[in-house]
Amino acid sequence: SKFEYVKQFEAEDRCLPNCWIVVRIDGKSFHRFADTHHFVKPNDDRSLNLMTKAAQSVIEDFKDIVLAYGQSDEYSFVFRKHTNMHNRRGSKLMTNLVSLFSSSFVYHWPRYFHTQPLQYPPAFDARIVLYPSDQNLKDYLSWRQADCHINNLYNTCFWKLVQEKGMSPALSQERLKGTLSSDKNEMLYTEFDLNYNNLPEMHRKGSLLLRRKQKASEDMNNSMSSQLSFGSQDFQENCRVRTQTIVLHCDIISEKFWTENPEILNSKK
Amino acid sequence: SKFEYVKQFEAEDRCLPNCWIVVRIDGKSFHRFADTHHFVKPNDDRSLNLMTKAAQSVIEDFKDIVLAYGQSDEYSFVFRKHTNMHNRRGSKLMTNLVSLFSSSFVYHWPRYFHTQPLQYPPAFDARIVLYPSDQNLKDYLSWRQADCHINNLYNTCFWKLVQEKGMSPALSQERLKGTLSSDKNEMLYTEFDLNYNNLPEMHRKGSLLLRRKQKASEDMNNSMSSQLSFGSQDFQENCRVRTQTIVLHCDIISEKFWTENPEILNSKK
Amino acid sequence: SKFEYVKQFEAEDRCLPNCWIVVRIDGKSFHRFADTHHFVKPNDDRSLNLMTKAAQSVIEDFKDIVLAYGQSDEYSFVFRKHTNMHNRRGSKLMTNLVSLFSSSFVYHWPRYFHTQPLQYPPAFDARIVLYPSDQNLKDYLSWRQADCHINNLYNTCFWKLVQEKGMSPALSQERLKGTLSSDKNEMLYTEFDLNYNNLPEMHRKGSLLLRRKQKASEDMNNSMSSQLSFGSQDFQENCRVRTQTIVLHCDIISEKFWTENPEILNSKK
Amino acid sequence: SKFEYVKQFEAEDRCLPNCWIVVRIDGKSFHRFADTHHFVKPNDDRSLNLMTKAAQSVIEDFKDIVLAYGQSDEYSFVFRKHTNMHNRRGSKLMTNLVSLFSSSFVYHWPRYFHTQPLQYPPAFDARIVLYPSDQNLKDYLSWRQADCHINNLYNTCFWKLVQEKGMSPALSQERLKGTLSSDKNEMLYTEFDLNYNNLPEMHRKGSLLLRRKQKASEDMNNSMSSQLSFGSQDFQENCRVRTQTIVLHCDIISEKFWTENPEILNSKK
Ligand SMILES: Nc1nc2c(ncn2[C@H]2C[C@H](O)[C@@H](COP(=O)(O)OP(=O)(O)OP(=O)(O)O)O2)c(=O)[nH]1
Ligand SMILES: Nc1nc2c(ncn2[C@H]2C[C@H](O)[C@@H](COP(=O)(O)OP(=O)(O)OP(=O)(O)O)O2)c(=O)[nH]1
Ligand SMILES: Nc1nc2c(ncn2[C@H]2C[C@H](O)[C@@H](COP(=O)(O)OP(=O)(O)OP(=O)(O)O)O2)c(=O)[nH]1
Ligand SMILES: Nc1nc2c(ncn2[C@H]2C[C@H](O)[C@@H](COP(=O)(O)OP(=O)(O)OP(=O)(O)O)O2)c(=O)[nH]1
Ligand SMILES: O=P(O)(O)OP(=O)(O)OP(=O)(O)O
Ligand SMILES: O=P(O)(O)OP(=O)(O)OP(=O)(O)O
Ligand SMILES: O=P(O)(O)OP(=O)(O)OP(=O)(O)O
Ligand SMILES: O=P(O)(O)OP(=O)(O)OP(=O)(O)O
Ligand SMILES: [Mg+2]
Ligand SMILES: [Mg+2]
Ligand SMILES: [Mg+2]
Ligand SMILES: [Mg+2]
Ligand SMILES: [Mg+2]
Ligand SMILES: [Mg+2]
Ligand SMILES: [Mg+2]
Ligand SMILES: [Mg+2]
Ligand SMILES: [Mg+2]
Ligand SMILES: [Mg+2]
Ligand SMILES: [Mg+2]
Ligand SMILES: [Mg+2]
Repeated sequence: SKFEYVKQFEAEDRCLPNCWIVVRIDGKSFHRFADTHHFVKPNDDRSLNLMTKAAQSVIEDFKDIVLAYGQSDEYSFVFRKHTNMHNRRGSKLMTNLVSLFSSSFVYHWPRYFHTQPLQYPPAFDARIVLYPSDQNLKDYLSWRQADCHINNLYNTCFWKLVQEKGMSPALSQERLKGTLSSDKNEMLYTEFDLNYNNLPEMHRKGSLLLRRKQKASEDMNNSMSSQLSFGSQDFQENCRVRTQTIVLHCDIISEKFWTENPEILNSKK
Repeated sequence: SKFEYVKQFEAEDRCLPNCWIVVRIDGKSFHRFADTHHFVKPNDDRSLNLMTKAAQSVIEDFKDIVLAYGQSDEYSFVFRKHTNMHNRRGSKLMTNLVSLFSSSFVYHWPRYFHTQPLQYPPAFDARIVLYPSDQNLKDYLSWRQADCHINNLYNTCFWKLVQEKGMSPALSQERLKGTLSSDKNEMLYTEFDLNYNNLPEMHRKGSLLLRRKQKASEDMNNSMSSQLSFGSQDFQENCRVRTQTIVLHCDIISEKFWTENPEILNSKK
Repeated sequence: SKFEYVKQFEAEDRCLPNCWIVVRIDGKSFHRFADTHHFVKPNDDRSLNLMTKAAQSVIEDFKDIVLAYGQSDEYSFVFRKHTNMHNRRGSKLMTNLVSLFSSSFVYHWPRYFHTQPLQYPPAFDARIVLYPSDQNLKDYLSWRQADCHINNLYNTCFWKLVQEKGMSPALSQERLKGTLSSDKNEMLYTEFDLNYNNLPEMHRKGSLLLRRKQKASEDMNNSMSSQLSFGSQDFQENCRVRTQTIVLHCDIISEKFWTENPEILNSKK
Repeated sequence: SKFEYVKQFEAEDRCLPNCWIVVRIDGKSFHRFADTHHFVKPNDDRSLNLMTKAAQSVIEDFKDIVLAYGQSDEYSFVFRKHTNMHNRRGSKLMTNLVSLFSSSFVYHWPRYFHTQPLQYPPAFDARIVLYPSDQNLKDYLSWRQADCHINNLYNTCFWKLVQEKGMSPALSQERLKGTLSSDKNEMLYTEFDLNYNNLPEMHRKGSLLLRRKQKASEDMNNSMSSQLSFGSQDFQENCRVRTQTIVLHCDIISEKFWTENPEILNSKK
C-alpha cells in the first residue's frame, strides 16, 4: 500500500560481531513491589527463586544463552559469542528476552508465592551491552557479583539493627555510614553472634544458571559441585524442555571458576 | 570496585527530539500460540480483548502515551512528541513497555480465557520507530489499519472456504490467489451470503485506545461516538488508575478522524 | 577470500528519513592556525572568503545541498529534506563533504592569500545532525548566526581595547566581563566612535550560500537584494559548474527571510 | 540563547571500548581523477607516494595511530586499542582524519607531481570500523592486502594486453574472464616474459606505515628489513614532526610479520 514507506523509518541495530552479548534485566521499582508483596528482608527466597525460575524459562527458549547470573531484582544473560539469533539485532534480542522473562515471572508466581496473590503485573527493563573480550565479560559478571556481596552485607547489617536492635532506619543507616566490609562482618559477629559466611550462599553469591552438557546423573567434578541444586523438576514437568540448566551459588569472581569450567566461554556452535 | 569500568561499555541510545516515538509490540510465534490455545479463526475475541486489556495496563502506567492501536497479535503505542520519559532512551522505553505488556497479558489471562489455562508464557518482541512529522505518524497508523483490513478480509474468506465449504487449506489458498478486495467481498456475499461490512468493527478496524480527558459520563460528540466501548470497569476495580482510556474501532485512515480529534496529536505536556 | 567476513563489522548508519540533514564543519585548532598565518583580528577577510570559496566547491558538487551558512572557522550545510544521496548514509555524507571542503580550502588558498604560503595542511571536523521540523532547522541556523553576532561583538570590543587602548588581553577580558550587548555597543560608540551596525555585514551576519534558480542577470526582488555578491567568476572559469551559488550576508534569524524565500525549504526534487 | 536547544539533537557516537578502531579512507571517483591526471597504468608511483605522504601527515598528527596500510586510492588507519582520542567519538575521529588526509594530499601534490597541476580538489570518503580481536584486525589488513594483490595482478595483465598486444579493453577483459591467479602469472611469464614476483613490492604488497621506536640509524633486525625506506627527509624538513614513521612493502598476511613485530599490537601508552 501507499503507506508502506513508513517501514523504512525502522533503524538497523545489529550487534558488532565477535563480541559477547549481555542482556541485563532489572525489576522496575522493585522497592515498591517488594513492599506491596511483603518480601522478607533483606532476602526473600520466594522472589529469588521465582526470578531464577523465570530466567530458566528464558534459557530453555534461547538456545544461544550460555550463562545467566542473577541477584536481587536483576538477571544477566550471556549469549554465546557467535550467536546469530535474530541476526544479532539488539532490539529483537532484548525485547523478546525481557518479554519472556516477565510473562514467565507472572506465570510461575503461584508456584513460589502460593496463595499470596500477585497484586499487579510487574515490569522489568532490559539493556544490551557488548563485551569484546573474555576478560571484559568476566569482569562484568564479577561486577554484578561484587554488587550482590556489598548490598547483601550492608542489608544484612541494616535489617539486623532495625529488626533486632529496634533502631530506626535512619539511625541504622547512620550507624553503618563509612563502615568497611570488615567492620560489618565484625559487627555481625560480635553484636549478633552471626558469622556472615554461614549465611545462605544464594544470598551472598547470587545465582548462576548454566546449561548442563553432562547427563543429569553425573556430578560436575569440580570444587563447587556441592553447591549444585538441580532444576530437575522442570525437566520432567515440562516436555518442551530439552536443555538441562543447573543452578549454582558459587564464586565467579576468582579465576578458579573459569579455569575449572572452560567450556562455558568456549562453547562451540 | 575495579570492575566498574564495564559500565562504560553501555551505549547511549537517546531518541531524536521532536519526533513521534512509536513502540510496536508483536506476539512471538502466535501462529503456534493460537493453535495451542484453540483460538477461534480468524478472530478470537478473547485474545483480542486480552491484548487490549494489556495495552490499557501499559497506557495507564506510561502517562506519556497518547494513543495505542492494536490488531491481531500486535499493538502500537505512540508517545507524545515531546515526552522526556526515561530521558527518551530507546531501550528503556521499549523494554519497560513490552515487559509490562507481557506480564499484564499473563496477569489478565483468566479474566478472558476463564477456566482455559495458559499453557506456556508467551513472548512479544518490540521495536521503536521515530516519525518526524504528523503525516508520517498518521501514515504509520494507516499502514497498520490497512494491514488489519487486508488480513482480515483474506482470513475471513480463507476460513469460510475451509470451514463451510470443506476445502483444504491448500485449495482455499489457491482459490484466493490473485483475487482483489472486490473479488473477496463479492465471494463472501454471493457464496456465503455475508456482507463483509456487517462483520464486527473490532475485526475489521482493529482497536484504538485513547485517553479520555472528558468525564466518563460525557459522550464524545463526534462521528464514531457510537463505537465507544468504555473501559469503565477498570476504573472502579483498580484504584491506581487515574487516566480513563476509551476503546474505539473506527477508521483512522481517513483524515476525518484526525480533523475531529485534533487534540490527540496536539496534546500539550 | 576467507578474509572478507571482516566487511560485516561495518555498521549501517542511515539517517532517519524526512529530516533535515545538517553537516557542520569546524576548523581544528584554528586559534593556532590563525596565529600562524597572521590572520587579521578579529576578522580576516581572506580567511572568511576562502572558507566561502571552499563551501561553494562543496555546494557545486553536492547537488542536494540547498543552503550553507558560515562564520569564523565553521560552515553548516543543509541537504534537501528528501535527499537520497549516498543512500542517506551519515558517514558517507559527512566524510565526503569535509574531505572536499578541506582539499578545496588548500587548493584555493593562493587565490586568497596570494604569496603568503600555507604553513601546514589544516583539518576540519564534521558532524551530522538531524532536524525533524522546519522550525528546528531555522532555529539551528539562528543559533549559528546568533553565535556569530555575539562573538563578533565581543571580539570587536576586545581587540579595540587591546589594539587601540593598549590594554593587555587579560585586562581587556576583565573589562568586558559581565557586559551586555547594549553595553558593548555603547562602549564602541562612545569610546571608539564606532557604530557597530556600520561594520561589514559579512562580519556581523556571516555568509549564506544559496543556489540560484533564476538566471544570473535577474535580480532577486526582495529585501536583501542589495546584499548580493555574485559568485559569478566561478561560473565562467570552471566549466564543471552547472549550479550558480549566491552569497548573502543577511539576517536569517527573523522570520522575514524565510517568508521572502520560501523556495529554499520547499525545494522539490 | 533560546536557540541553543538545537544542540541536543546531536547524537552521541562513542566507539565500543576495548576494540581496535580502524578508519579507512578511499578516493572518490578516482577512476576519473586518475584519467584527468594521466596516471600511469596500472600503478602511478607519484600518486602512490603522495597517498603515503598524506598518510604520514595523519600519523604524525594522530599520535594514537599505530599502523596504516594503503594501496590504490585507499588507506586504512589503525588506532591503538585503548585510545581515548576525541573520547572515542566516531564522527570526530573519521572526519578529522579524512580532512587532514585530504588537505595534505593537496598540500603535498607539487612535491610528487611537480609542474603538473592539480586540476580540481579531490575528495575521499571515510568509514570507521571496530574489530574486537587481534585476529579480526589482522584479517582486516589481510583482506586489504589480498585485494591489492588480486587487483594488481589483474590490472597488470589487463594493461599488458591493451598496451603491448594492442587489444581493446573489452577484448582484454574477455580474455581474462575466469582466469585463476596461476593462469595470470603464467600468461605474464610466457606472453610478456615477465616474472610477476619481480614487479615492485610497493605495487604487489601496498604500503605499510609504522611508527619507529628505535633510533633512525638502527636497522630493524627482521626479515623485511631490506624493504625499509625511511621517511627521514620529513624529519628534517618539518620541525613539528616528533614521531618517525617507516614505510614497508612487506607481506602482512602471513603470521610471520606479526610474530616478528609483536609490539605493534601490544603498544602500551
Ligand atoms: N525485601 C526485599 N526487597 C528486595 C529483594 N530483592 C530486591 N528487593 C528490592 C530492594 C531494592 O530496593 C530493589 C532493587 O533495587 P533497584 O536498584 O533495582 O531499585 P528499584 O527496582 O526500586 O528501582 P529501579 O526501577 O530499578 O530504578 O528491590 C528481596 O529479596 N527482599
Ligand atoms: N486463530 C487466530 N489466530 C490469530 C489471531 N490473532 C493472531 N493470530 C495468529 C495468526 C497469525 O499467524 C499470527 C500473527 O502473525 P505474525 O505475522 O505476527 O506471525 P507469528 O506471530 O506467528 O510469528 P512472528 O514471531 O511474529 O514472526 O497470530 C486470532 O484472533 N485468531
Ligand atoms: N584572527 C582571526 N582568528 C579567527 C578568525 N576566524 C576564526 N578565528 C580563530 C579564532 C578562534 O579562536 C577560532 C575558532 O574558534 P573555535 O571554537 O572553533 O576553536 P578552535 O578552532 O581553536 O578549536 P577547535 O579545534 O575548534 O576546538 O578560530 C579570523 O577571521 N581572524
Ligand atoms: N591509472 C591508475 N589508476 C589508479 C591508480 N590507483 C587508483 N586508480 C584508480 C583506478 C580505480 O578505478 C580507482 C580505485 O577504485 P575504486 O573502487 O576506489 O573506485 P573509484 O574511486 O573510481 O570510485 P569510488 O568513488 O571509490 O566508488 O582508482 C593508479 O596508480 N593508476
Ligand atoms: O514479522 P514480519 O514478517 O511481519 O515482518 P517484520 O515484523 O517487519 O519483520 P521483523 O519482525 O523481522 O522485523
Ligand atoms: O538503576 P540504577 O540506579 O541501579 O543504575 P543503572 O541501572 O545503571 O541506571 P539506569 O537504569 O538509568 O540505566
Ligand atoms: O566502494 P566499493 O564498491 O569498493 O565497496 P565499498 O567501499 O564496500 O562500498 P561503499 O563505498 O558503498 O561502502
Ligand atoms: O568545539 P566547541 O567547544 O565550540 O563546542 P562543540 O563543537 O559543541 O564541541 P565538540 O567539538 O567537542 O563537539
Ligand atoms: Mg537501573
Ligand atoms: Mg530495579
Ligand atoms: Mg536492581
Ligand atoms: Mg515481525
Ligand atoms: Mg507475531
Ligand atoms: Mg503479527
Ligand atoms: Mg567543536
Ligand atoms: Mg575550530
Ligand atoms: Mg569554530
Ligand atoms: Mg567504496
Ligand atoms: Mg575510490
Ligand atoms: Mg578504492
